[in-house]
Amino acid sequence: VSGRDPGPGRPRLGSSPEFDLIAAIAERMEATLAASGSPAEIRVGIGDDAAVTVPPGATATTVDALVDGVAFRRRWCPPRSVGRKALAAALSDLAAMGARPGEAYVWLGRPDDFDQGACLELAEGLADLAAEHGVAVLGGDLTASPALSVCVTAVGHAGSAEELVGRSGAEPGCALCVTGELGGAAAGLMLLEHDELAAEVPAAGREAAVARQLEPAPRLAAGAALAAAGTVAMVDLSDGLGADARHLAAASGAGVEIELDRLPLAAGVREVAAAAGRDPLELAASGGEDYELLCAIPRGRLAAATDAVCECGTTLTEVGRVVSGGSVRLRLPGGRSVPVKGHDHLRGR
Amino acid sequence: VSGRDPGPGRPRLGSSPEFDLIAAIAERMEATLAASGSPAEIRVGIGDDAAVTVPPGATATTVDALVDGVAFRRRWCPPRSVGRKALAAALSDLAAMGARPGEAYVWLGRPDDFDQGACLELAEGLADLAAEHGVAVLGGDLTASPALSVCVTAVGHAGSAEELVGRSGAEPGCALCVTGELGGAAAGLMLLEHDELAAEVPAAGREAAVARQLEPAPRLAAGAALAAAGTVAMVDLSDGLGADARHLAAASGAGVEIELDRLPLAAGVREVAAAAGRDPLELAASGGEDYELLCAIPRGRLAAATDAVCECGTTLTEVGRVVSGGSVRLRLPGGRSVPVKGHDHLRGR
Repeated sequence: VSGRDPGPGRPRLGSSPEFDLIAAIAERMEATLAASGSPAEIRVGIGDDAAVTVPPGATATTVDALVDGVAFRRRWCPPRSVGRKALAAALSDLAAMGARPGEAYVWLGRPDDFDQGACLELAEGLADLAAEHGVAVLGGDLTASPALSVCVTAVGHAGSAEELVGRSGAEPGCALCVTGELGGAAAGLMLLEHDELAAEVPAAGREAAVARQLEPAPRLAAGAALAAAGTVAMVDLSDGLGADARHLAAASGAGVEIELDRLPLAAGVREVAAAAGRDPLELAASGGEDYELLCAIPRGRLAAATDAVCECGTTLTEVGRVVSGGSVRLRLPGGRSVPVKGHDHLRGR
Repeated sequence: VSGRDPGPGRPRLGSSPEFDLIAAIAERMEATLAASGSPAEIRVGIGDDAAVTVPPGATATTVDALVDGVAFRRRWCPPRSVGRKALAAALSDLAAMGARPGEAYVWLGRPDDFDQGACLELAEGLADLAAEHGVAVLGGDLTASPALSVCVTAVGHAGSAEELVGRSGAEPGCALCVTGELGGAAAGLMLLEHDELAAEVPAAGREAAVARQLEPAPRLAAGAALAAAGTVAMVDLSDGLGADARHLAAASGAGVEIELDRLPLAAGVREVAAAAGRDPLELAASGGEDYELLCAIPRGRLAAATDAVCECGTTLTEVGRVVSGGSVRLRLPGGRSVPVKGHDHLRGR
């Protein structure tokens, strides 16, 4: 963790970094080293020009960023959740590769009205999730910024590149499956953005949905289990099932058919959808940020993969199939199917 | 390069990503693969959940971010230079480790009034510098943001962790040296921020100083040569010589003495300082963003290290020595010495 000091010899731009705050954040991040389960040997952590590691084989690296007003609002997202969400989004990408999580590097863009206590809470939320998954936070940077922003680079590992699962291996005939349940993060967001919905949703459903939005859990164990069980293509559900299925299909040069009524609904989704006059399956098919995994599994390996995911404490649900051609279609409960055209694919129904 | 799509099933926050723009940026970044000189085997680049590489030994990883109004202003920093500066700052950290540059991951926070053409120019500037140094840009993300922001994670390589040089190995008796020339970036910033200075500075000096601010060159070859020649501690000059010398001294548990009149002045510094009524040595000692290297070299290796840096087309200047104790002092031309107390260490002179 370093800060830029423009120095007295030049005109100052913006505010100067606060080295005390940086030191306090660095201390919190350094504590993640003690809980590190990274397969990489960590030689130099925070405090030098760069961190130094010796990775065991292949590495998977991803960057994810959250900006206030785009992925969250400070009004309803406490600093701890901002930190947690930022790391979770990056770790979810590693889960979708079947990688073992290793290290993270964090940049924090801090507005003037986000005080030191809030910065430390954000660091705490991020460090807690890191420790849960054995991720060592090895570096970062802090800059003044008009909008609260967090950018996380996460590095995962595998013995060899062949053990990692990309998006491009889906073949016609594969089962299309999702881990866990869908629509929860979207339902949570609706509750957080529309206070008037709360009164119409029972507390248990409300809490479950809001937790899916504020405290996402990257499916790292399930991702590794799926990779080991012979999954041939995988993507994490950050943009929404429809959009991410399109990504998987396009990368694989295949098509995808999804049975809408097979989608597993997260707790609270039915109640929130009812209160908002929305279709719960629509939330499940197009809401983003569930951070579940969508994967293509050859039929012969489906039973073993399902068992492997169950052993991680997560469910695996078959929601459709990979087909030839390039189209991504949703089969509606009545039997009719509609193409997933893009972000607005369900708007016209 | 991916974009977050909030989907129609949830209230939209901010603006939606533009997949055409992302594709165009990704295409420009993918071109860096062709010029890649990374010692790592690159197995998966842009377009999957994460990039996959097989590093050859030890890796050095660093994060650097630029935000409009803090590290630059859009008024005077063209998009190409924003991209170039962001990558240069991260690569400079790798240079200070003596690492060979390998891969980069980029997040771009884009305000509404920064149009697609500007985004592509920024990508172009970054990709050009990447290609100059054989760096492959393997991933990234694009988010709407109220302030133009670029966050770069850079990964470098070495055969083993022992080949990399940290900040903490300086010992009393070592010569303290800097590569290249100092104060240029600070002089350039003064010219860019104060239009009225231009008329008083000859064109050659003006251009040289502005180029140091807008087109910084990370000292990767010199850093690798210094590491191979037995440099025991190294840091890049991003915060300014005084501040960075303090970082090196603190990490090494040693003190540092710098002879002010030995500082090598960059082209244009004298002229800009004269026009602004400032001391050129003050700009050299405390101006940031020169991205030269400050290093501690055992006396017996100094001649060889100097030759090695010269072979890279850069100079190495002895500017002081490492001493016992923890203080960092500047020896002024008259013989008096003053402590470097922090960011404002020269203000009181």
